[in-house]
Amino acid sequence: MNSKIITSASNPLIKSIVRLKDKRERDQTGLYIIEGYRECLRAQKGGVTFQTFVFSSEHFLGVSEPDLISSIAKEGSEIIELPKHLFSKISYRDRPDGLLGIAKKNPISLNSLQRKDLFVVAESIEKPGNLGSILRSSDAVGASGLIVCDRKTDVYNPNVVRASVGTLFTVPVVEESSENTLKFLRKNNIQIVATTPDTALEYTQANLTGPVAIVMGTEQLGLSDFWLKNADIKVRIPMLGVADSLNVASATTLLLYECLRQKRGS
Amino acid sequence: MNSKIITSASNPLIKSIVRLKDKRERDQTGLYIIEGYRECLRAQKGGVTFQTFVFSSEHFLGVSEPDLISSIAKEGSEIIELPKHLFSKISYRDRPDGLLGIAKKNPISLNSLQRKDLFVVAESIEKPGNLGSILRSSDAVGASGLIVCDRKTDVYNPNVVRASVGTLFTVPVVEESSENTLKFLRKNNIQIVATTPDTALEYTQANLTGPVAIVMGTEQLGLSDFWLKNADIKVRIPMLGVADSLNVASATTLLLYECLRQKRGS
Repeated sequence: MNSKIITSASNPLIKSIVRLKDKRERDQTGLYIIEGYRECLRAQKGGVTFQTFVFSSEHFLGVSEPDLISSIAKEGSEIIELPKHLFSKISYRDRPDGLLGIAKKNPISLNSLQRKDLFVVAESIEKPGNLGSILRSSDAVGASGLIVCDRKTDVYNPNVVRASVGTLFTVPVVEESSENTLKFLRKNNIQIVATTPDTALEYTQANLTGPVAIVMGTEQLGLSDFWLKNADIKVRIPMLGVADSLNVASATTLLLYECLRQKRGS
Repeated sequence: MNSKIITSASNPLIKSIVRLKDKRERDQTGLYIIEGYRECLRAQKGGVTFQTFVFSSEHFLGVSEPDLISSIAKEGSEIIELPKHLFSKISYRDRPDGLLGIAKKNPISLNSLQRKDLFVVAESIEKPGNLGSILRSSDAVGASGLIVCDRKTDVYNPNVVRASVGTLFTVPVVEESSENTLKFLRKNNIQIVATTPDTALEYTQANLTGPVAIVMGTEQLGLSDFWLKNADIKVRIPMLGVADSLNVASATTLLLYECLRQKRGS
């Protein structure tokens, strides 16, 4: 395996990695960062090709890191070795594990989605941790895809990648406008389910056995009028306490697993 | 309403508020910070008395803030007004809303818990956001309490208060060792339910209609051997994708709502 060693913090590659923390830089370059053993492994298995792959063996936490690096090198990625302090500088984590790749975004369109039975439509979610957790639950129930409408948080944000523990690479993610998403769902006869406190029907009472899109709104304001108006059914999650809503990732998980439970008849 | 105005950043009160960001300071003083309209309102309704209450009207987002301040003043709290820039300095938020109270912790013991039918036992949860979301879901299902064992994150961390959207004041929270928690659960015939991938029984197949304690482990490592060994039943959440677990708050929510669904026969 050929690898280059960089020892200067003023090296252009180091600077470009640091800049990718910024959404504008990711939008302009089409590149993003994947950090961590589990995340890089799942990215590779999910078909991601790393343009550049950076490691620092002094940070390694396990024994499988060299195998992963070799297999990434075989795919033609440029491999760069860094001393510990330089890796710490570019790392997005409190406890870096010495592995970080730069990959090109690979946008998916609605029409290229293969399966069309269970979607999450996430409208204007703001917190990367929530979007990551939603991806994790979408992966867990075998969802057909996550559609991010009118995005406030870039799904390629390093904190989404981290919170998704690599499921960003296993769940098809589409960024699309609400209008086009609605057209797609209507055309494919996918039932649009909106979660709102302003309805009597509980989520466990609704029929969720057919093709379904679970539409979830922002952390602060919930769903927009657009989705409330265009939903085929509105369901509520029982709230017995003082709070009027759950965390958005928890609520999405609840709905997704209810679909799964009903589909499997358990 | 009498209120004092502070204009200097070197005022001891300002400094003491900033120090409460630190867990050691909260442990030593027994004080903690509650910030935000919704959180302060729920704290007050939940019986919290503010030692000192600080506001800055230039940050207000709504019209109800003066009423809340008056009602807090009537309870005998010291009320302090700050100019905008000083409030920004002490605020824990990106977008402060001009309200922040200092309250005394009010530790609850296991034996003082009134209802004993549905508990969450959270073992060594690390992320404040997760602990806050678990509180929010515990409130939503009307849980009897949250028992935090071998804590890694202080429940009085400002980010827990925020992520709980004030449900920290409606759900009884007990900090206790795993050993004492186990004794309490055994004595009260509360079924201990552990979630783990290493079992065949799915959570929807288990009988969760009686008194139940849902035990959840750390984000990284899951449950300790102690709880796995002492659980009455082990259940799994179906995982159809590549990830082997959900976000811990999402998983807890799923289990809590399954208890609710079964108890209500829906």
